[in-house]
Amino acid sequence: MRNIKMTIQYDGSKYKGWQRLKNNDMTIQSKIENILSKMTGENIEIIGSGRTDGGVHAIAQVANFKTNCSIGVSEIMDYMYKYLPEDIVVTKIEEVNERFHSRYNAKSKTYIYKIWNDTYHNPFLRKYYEHIDQKLDIEAMKKGASYLIGEHDFSSFKSSRSQKKSNVRTVYSIDITRNESIVEISIHGNGFLHNMVRIIVGTLLEVGLYKKRPEDIKDILQKKDRSLAGPTASPKGLYLFNIEY
Amino acid sequence: MRNIKMTIQYDGSKYKGWQRLKNNDMTIQSKIENILSKMTGENIEIIGSGRTDGGVHAIAQVANFKTNCSIGVSEIMDYMYKYLPEDIVVTKIEEVNERFHSRYNAKSKTYIYKIWNDTYHNPFLRKYYEHIDQKLDIEAMKKGASYLIGEHDFSSFKSSRSQKKSNVRTVYSIDITRNESIVEISIHGNGFLHNMVRIIVGTLLEVGLYKKRPEDIKDILQKKDRSLAGPTASPKGLYLFNIEY
Repeated sequence: MRNIKMTIQYDGSKYKGWQRLKNNDMTIQSKIENILSKMTGENIEIIGSGRTDGGVHAIAQVANFKTNCSIGVSEIMDYMYKYLPEDIVVTKIEEVNERFHSRYNAKSKTYIYKIWNDTYHNPFLRKYYEHIDQKLDIEAMKKGASYLIGEHDFSSFKSSRSQKKSNVRTVYSIDITRNESIVEISIHGNGFLHNMVRIIVGTLLEVGLYKKRPEDIKDILQKKDRSLAGPTASPKGLYLFNIEY
Repeated sequence: MRNIKMTIQYDGSKYKGWQRLKNNDMTIQSKIENILSKMTGENIEIIGSGRTDGGVHAIAQVANFKTNCSIGVSEIMDYMYKYLPEDIVVTKIEEVNERFHSRYNAKSKTYIYKIWNDTYHNPFLRKYYEHIDQKLDIEAMKKGASYLIGEHDFSSFKSSRSQKKSNVRTVYSIDITRNESIVEISIHGNGFLHNMVRIIVGTLLEVGLYKKRPEDIKDILQKKDRSLAGPTASPKGLYLFNIEY
C-alpha cells in the first residue's frame, strides 16, 4: 500500500479540534478523511502527529494515510485544495516509506503561543492572538520558563483529563520574544501532555503580570499539583508550529 | 464648543463602509456616532477624513466631532472601547483647535494594499489579504507604477460613480515590497478619487501577471478612459494607513 504524508495548515477557530468525533463532523480530521475517502473510494483513516484541542491552530500539522489508489501526489494536492473548507489547507504531500507513522515517528514538536500585549485589542488579530492589556515582564517570564527546561514530571501542567501513563516529558527550549506589541512564546519538547502548553503559557503569563514569582514555577513543578499552576490559556493564541522527525 | 479628534482602527469586513446610510446601520460612522450621541446626550455628527468603501479596513482613520459635553478625553476613550463592537477600536483621542476639520485639513493620505502571493491561500490571512496564486513580477509593477507618480488627471482610475469636480490628483509615491509570500503596495497621495487606489492596484496586478506591459500605464493615464485600466481590486486587501495633516 502507498503511504502518503501530508503537511496541514489550519485556522482552528471554528473546529472542535483535530480528532474525529462520533456525532460532530466539525473536526479537522473528519473534514480531511471525508474528502480523501470520496477521492479514493476507500475508507481512509488519517493518523495525525497528535491531537490539537478545539480552537487551536496549526502552521504545520503532519498526518499520514495508507491507500491503494494510484492518484498522483499533485492531483491529491489539487483535489484537497479544491474541496477542503478555506480554513484548512494541505501545504505539502509526499509519498513516504510504508513504515512512516506520523505519531510514533515524531521526535519532537514545537508550539507557538501568540499574544497581543497592548492596552487595546487589535481588530485584525483579535481572533488569532490572546489579548493581554497589562504590559508583560518578559525577563521575569524567561526566568520562570528556565525552571521548566529539561526532563521533568509535568503533572502540575496537565489537564485532569490527561490519561497518559507517564507524565514525564522533556522540554528542550522555551523562547519568549517581544516585537513591539506582539509577544511570542515558542515551546519545543519531545511531547506534551493534554493542555500542557496552554497551562505552561497561563502560568508564565501570571509571572509576567507579577501574580507569581519566577521561582514559584520550580515549586509548582515539584509539587505535582495542577491546582498550583496558572489557568489554561485560551486556545485562540496557540499554534502547532512544527513536528520534527 | 469642544472639538475632539479621534484616530480609529477598524476591520471593515462586516461593514458597508465608513459613511452613514439611511436604512442600514452597518457603517463605521453610524456605530461611532450612535455611541457618542448616547454618551453625550447630544446629536453627534462625526466628520471623517474621507470615506472608505464596504469591506475596506483602516489602521488609522481620523474623524472629529464638536460637543458641549465636559467628559474627559480618557473617559471618552474608555467609553468607546467598552461599547464599540470589537472590530472597531478608537486608538487615540485628543482635544484640538475648534477650526480643525478632518477632511479639509488633510494634506495627504497613505493607503496600503496587502497581497498573499503564493500558490495556496493562507488560512489566517484569507480575510485580510488578497490572494494571487501566480508569482507577481514586482520589478514590472514598480516600473508600471512609476508612470503614475506626480500630478495627473486620474479619470482612467476612478469609478464611474465618482462625481468630483476635478479628476486631477497628485500621487507622491507608490512603494511595492515583497517579504516572502507577502506583497505590499503603499500609495501616498494628496487625495484619491472613488476606487482610485483599488483600480491602480488592479492595474498594477495585471502588469505583475504580464497581462499588461508597464508602459501601458502611461497610455491608460493619457486616454482618460476607465475601461482601459484593470479591474477594481477586492476591498479586503485595502487599508487606510495614515492621514497626514
